[in-house]
Amino acid sequence: MTTPEERITELGLTLPEVAAPVASYAPTVRSGDHVYVSGQLPLVEGALVATGKVGAEVTPETARELAEVCALNAIAAVRAEVGELSKVVRVVKVGGYVAGTPDFTGQPGVVNGASDLLVRVFGDAGVHARAAVGVAALPLDAPVEIEMIVEVR
Amino acid sequence: MTTPEERITELGLTLPEVAAPVASYAPTVRSGDHVYVSGQLPLVEGALVATGKVGAEVTPETARELAEVCALNAIAAVRAEVGELSKVVRVVKVGGYVAGTPDFTGQPGVVNGASDLLVRVFGDAGVHARAAVGVAALPLDAPVEIEMIVEVR
Amino acid sequence: MTTPEERITELGLTLPEVAAPVASYAPTVRSGDHVYVSGQLPLVEGALVATGKVGAEVTPETARELAEVCALNAIAAVRAEVGELSKVVRVVKVGGYVAGTPDFTGQPGVVNGASDLLVRVFGDAGVHARAAVGVAALPLDAPVEIEMIVEVR
Repeated sequence: MTTPEERITELGLTLPEVAAPVASYAPTVRSGDHVYVSGQLPLVEGALVATGKVGAEVTPETARELAEVCALNAIAAVRAEVGELSKVVRVVKVGGYVAGTPDFTGQPGVVNGASDLLVRVFGDAGVHARAAVGVAALPLDAPVEIEMIVEVR
Repeated sequence: MTTPEERITELGLTLPEVAAPVASYAPTVRSGDHVYVSGQLPLVEGALVATGKVGAEVTPETARELAEVCALNAIAAVRAEVGELSKVVRVVKVGGYVAGTPDFTGQPGVVNGASDLLVRVFGDAGVHARAAVGVAALPLDAPVEIEMIVEVR
Repeated sequence: MTTPEERITELGLTLPEVAAPVASYAPTVRSGDHVYVSGQLPLVEGALVATGKVGAEVTPETARELAEVCALNAIAAVRAEVGELSKVVRVVKVGGYVAGTPDFTGQPGVVNGASDLLVRVFGDAGVHARAAVGVAALPLDAPVEIEMIVEVR
C-alpha cells in the first residue's frame, strides 16, 4: 500500500515547507472533518516561479505547470494540518483562478495541472469537484491560484 | 406534494444528461451531507448556447437565460449524485461568475437567472447564500458559470 | 470575558442592520454547524461607500477600508442568523474579491482590511483560511466583495 507521500516522491516531487502567512489568516483551517486550504500561489522557496497573465507573458503550458506547483503547496499545507496524508478521505472541491487576458479561455487546461497531480497523489480520493475561472489579476502578479477543501479522518 | 422533478416539467424544462468531465475531476462530490457541484457552463447537448462577454457581445438578458441553463445543469448533476431531487434539504450556496467587460456591473441580475430557477424548483429549500462576481474570462468563452453546494439527506 | 459585540463597540464600530436581498437568495444560510454568508458589498445604510476599480479611481488604502466595511456587514449577517456572536466557534473561510485593473496585484493588502477586523472581533477564533483574487468588476461597481463561512455552536 503506497502512501500519498511515497507517490509524491515517485513523481520526483518534494513537499515544500509551509510558509506562514503574513496576515491575519492561516494556510489551513480545520472545521469538523474538513480542512479548508487558503488560496495557494506558485511559490517555490518563497518566490513566485513566474509572473504575468496567461495569454500574454505566460503560456498555457507554463501556467499548467504553475497550477501543479500551487497544488503541491496545498498538499503540503494539508499535511501540516493533519500530520500525514493518509488521513485524507477525499479532495472535495478545488477552486482554480487563472489571471489572463480576456481572450484567454483555456482555464480548464491550466487547472488540470492541479487536478491531475491530486489524482496521481491520492488516487480515486483525489477526484474532486472543481470550478475554474479567469480573473483580472492575482496577488503579486501570480498567473494561477488554487484553493481546496479536503475531507479528512 | 409536487416533487422538484415535476416542477421542472411544469416549467417546460427538461433535465439534461450529465456530461462526463474530460479531466481529473467530477461533476459532483458528496462529502457527508453536502454535495459540491462543479462549475457549470451554459451547455446544451454538449455545446455552449452562447459565447462572449456580457456588456459586449452578450446582453444582460441573454446572460440571465444562460445562468438558468447553468443552474439546470447543476440540478441535473445533483440528481445524478443522489438519485432524486426530493433528497435536497437545502441549496446552501451558489457562486455565480459572469464574464464581462470591466464596465458591466449588473452581475446580480444575471445570476438571478440561476437563483430564481432554484427557488421555483425547490421552493423555500432553494433559497441560498450567494456571491456574484464579474470575471475576465471563463472556459470556452462562456459568459456565465454557476457552482453550488447543496445539503442532502 | 469580552464578547465580540463589546469588542466591536470598543473599536468604535456599530453593527449595521442587515438589508434584505432583492432576489431569490438570503444574506445567510445555516447548514449543520456552518453559516454561509453571501458576498457582502461595502454598503452603509444601503449605499456604496465608494465605487470604481482599485488601481484606477480607488486607492488600495481606501479599498482596505471598504473591505473592513464588507466584513462588518458579514458579521452583522452572522449575528442576525445565530442571535449572538459568542456562538461563533471559528471563522473558517473568507473569500475576498477585489475589482481592479489588470496591473493591480495588491489584493492581499486590501483583503487584510476584512481579515484584521475578524481577528480583532473574534480573537483566535477569527483566524481563517482565505483566498484573495482580482476580478474584472463587481455588482454596482463595488471595489470589494467579501464572502465567509463560519462555524457556529
